[in-house]
Amino acid sequence: MCEEQNFYAIADIQAKILPGVTHWQSPNFFGYYPSNSSIAGFLGEMMSAGLNVVGFSWITSPAATELEMIVLDWFGKMLKLPEEFLSAGKGGGVIQGSASEAVLVVLLAARDKILRRVGKNSLEKLVLYASDQTHSALQKACQIGGIHPENCRLLRTDSSTDYALSPNVLNEAISDDVTSGLIPFFLCATVGTTSSTAVDPLLELGKIAKSNEMWFHVDAAYAGSACICPEYRHYIDGVEEADSFNTNAHKWFLTNFDCSVLWIKDRNALIQALSTNPEFLKNKASQANLVVDYKDWQIPLGRRFRSLKLWMVMRLYGLENLQSYIRNHINLAKHFEELVAQDPRFEIVTPRLFSLVCFRLLPPHNDETCATKLNHGLLDAVNSTGKIFASHTVLSGKYLLRLAVGAPLTEERHVNAAWKLLQDEASALLATL
Amino acid sequence: MCEEQNFYAIADIQAKILPGVTHWQSPNFFGYYPSNSSIAGFLGEMMSAGLNVVGFSWITSPAATELEMIVLDWFGKMLKLPEEFLSAGKGGGVIQGSASEAVLVVLLAARDKILRRVGKNSLEKLVLYASDQTHSALQKACQIGGIHPENCRLLRTDSSTDYALSPNVLNEAISDDVTSGLIPFFLCATVGTTSSTAVDPLLELGKIAKSNEMWFHVDAAYAGSACICPEYRHYIDGVEEADSFNTNAHKWFLTNFDCSVLWIKDRNALIQALSTNPEFLKNKASQANLVVDYKDWQIPLGRRFRSLKLWMVMRLYGLENLQSYIRNHINLAKHFEELVAQDPRFEIVTPRLFSLVCFRLLPPHNDETCATKLNHGLLDAVNSTGKIFASHTVLSGKYLLRLAVGAPLTEERHVNAAWKLLQDEASALLATL
Repeated sequence: MCEEQNFYAIADIQAKILPGVTHWQSPNFFGYYPSNSSIAGFLGEMMSAGLNVVGFSWITSPAATELEMIVLDWFGKMLKLPEEFLSAGKGGGVIQGSASEAVLVVLLAARDKILRRVGKNSLEKLVLYASDQTHSALQKACQIGGIHPENCRLLRTDSSTDYALSPNVLNEAISDDVTSGLIPFFLCATVGTTSSTAVDPLLELGKIAKSNEMWFHVDAAYAGSACICPEYRHYIDGVEEADSFNTNAHKWFLTNFDCSVLWIKDRNALIQALSTNPEFLKNKASQANLVVDYKDWQIPLGRRFRSLKLWMVMRLYGLENLQSYIRNHINLAKHFEELVAQDPRFEIVTPRLFSLVCFRLLPPHNDETCATKLNHGLLDAVNSTGKIFASHTVLSGKYLLRLAVGAPLTEERHVNAAWKLLQDEASALLATL
Repeated sequence: MCEEQNFYAIADIQAKILPGVTHWQSPNFFGYYPSNSSIAGFLGEMMSAGLNVVGFSWITSPAATELEMIVLDWFGKMLKLPEEFLSAGKGGGVIQGSASEAVLVVLLAARDKILRRVGKNSLEKLVLYASDQTHSALQKACQIGGIHPENCRLLRTDSSTDYALSPNVLNEAISDDVTSGLIPFFLCATVGTTSSTAVDPLLELGKIAKSNEMWFHVDAAYAGSACICPEYRHYIDGVEEADSFNTNAHKWFLTNFDCSVLWIKDRNALIQALSTNPEFLKNKASQANLVVDYKDWQIPLGRRFRSLKLWMVMRLYGLENLQSYIRNHINLAKHFEELVAQDPRFEIVTPRLFSLVCFRLLPPHNDETCATKLNHGLLDAVNSTGKIFASHTVLSGKYLLRLAVGAPLTEERHVNAAWKLLQDEASALLATL
């Protein structure tokens, strides 16, 4: 009976569900930053699903908490993060569900820290800063935390800095706000923005944050993984100035979704903002302050045993394999960039730093008025074939295409085929003009 | 090589990780409300991990969004929820990671709805109500949403109402606050509290909320699953008065953690509080408002394909099997309650409604001064044997033991053995007095 049921269920999945799935694991998926699945990550998910523990407190599954601390220390060392981010001191790492939750919890920690100093009725005076390229998760965190939207400064960037936040622009904004009696309290910098992998200058920005007693968060959700390679580590130089640092192991680090890693220098700031201690959860170990209770480092109470999959990935692949995995994708993107550069009908809009290429089809006779329609049409045309999935963004008013390499199965032949398809559809489109 | 690595990894798991795991799937796990794992739930997790899609918008995996809508409508019908909670109208269901996130998102929706009416600088005037038995997740949601802690009214309950919130007490609190110029905006009722499965009177409380234009949320995280049985459905009578209703399929519904189901009558209230619309996520379907984008119904952007496991559970087991699964656990708890009642050394502290029994060892010569120490010692003693895991709570100053039946493998023999252990340890303890 149950076997029969099983059979019908599987049939339903093939007939009714799979046709409606967007295949993030396809080697032809170039649309968004990747969501890596791997044998090791999958095995970790299996074990976690089998044990199905709810590790909110140390006591509810000591191994879940302790393995997470160990694995995040390993990862922190791979990234050469400052000692203060590791669990031995006052800091430590924690797995969040997503970069949105990571920026939210540190924003709340920063909010409550400053409000303890200036008084809890000053909420409407708090101001935070980031570039206009920052992920929308920051704005959402502000909405949730009750920060007034008009106090969320998304500072203008342009091609002169390759869409990185300019320290001068930040300084001006801060002094304007201080003059008008507002209270700067939070700065979010990004290493590898969503639109174009722009990298904000951490060291200079961090010094500005420090001199203004602001919390400094670094969002490296996508590009952080690349920094395990010595030749890319310099992109996070200055992270020593940060109060918190985040990267998504579930994007480009072969760890199944969800696994967003957040490191923080002062874990108490997080705990003061997020802890609760109901009678029914009290236990010797927690009361004696002998253990870490991750429930106080995150939004929800319950949490899955997510460190298992990250541990499996590190344990089975190791640093060198992970580094060559990253390098291979970056080389494939470099290869695609060269292909685009060889075709005079296209332009590379921003320099490629990692595995994302931002490009567009040039409008005939430099007629910018039809550029958006043209590239929008091109994206529609290639995606409608179902052969690849690409996406778009807009930079300084320019509509452009994004091709992000990062699926574990993507090889040079897939990148070549994607480019061939783009060229063919471009020719067809241009012929209609 | 990789096989060898695999071998060592598995060896490490057995040697280093499993010994540190608290076994929530053990038939002798009675400590907290359960975290059910099942074949169907496990298969669903596997499929989800294999596809590893990130279904934040409809376009990023249409099946992930559409299956979730379908399955939550099925579940809503199993619970006989009012039509307004189903996706056909202005409401709908959404899978959250936990009941903490469910109460947080509806609190934010309610907060922003009232602030749009009274002005965004009135945050410190907002007051919410719940009983002192409400889960700590509510207080945490207040901390996160910037509601002043002193405006979080956790109204006193006692044994006279079996720890349910009294409508009169609520009415008084509201009129006091209104008199002092505060703004009541949110009421949270619980069906099956964490400490003792108390059930708040939804109908009366709901009418009070409505007449004061407050948002009414019902937290049935644990007990909601039981309401698929006609004989227990009456516990959520009055849910028609609620604006939102939550139950955790990952607790007592054979669906692997995490899968917390939230239904809401006015999905736009949620979307207004939680939506963002960055350029890089824009797409035809979303812009044309033709689809549901669950990213706007939750805290994070990314989300796993969690409806697959809930679908597998319903598809493979069906309503009748799920009902008898629940009934079996409740009968086992009833059986344990009878065993306790037969031993004059013990007392049942609150009447058992579902699968949790709240009991304690009576202090010799009714000497209440040693009652806490005695029962604390009893809990320590039984848990230290490693044979079972039970927990505790405190009601009206009484320290008591909680035995929650709910692991899929628990049978009568396990309950009998647990009782035998409790009796033996009690005898040993009493002998030392």
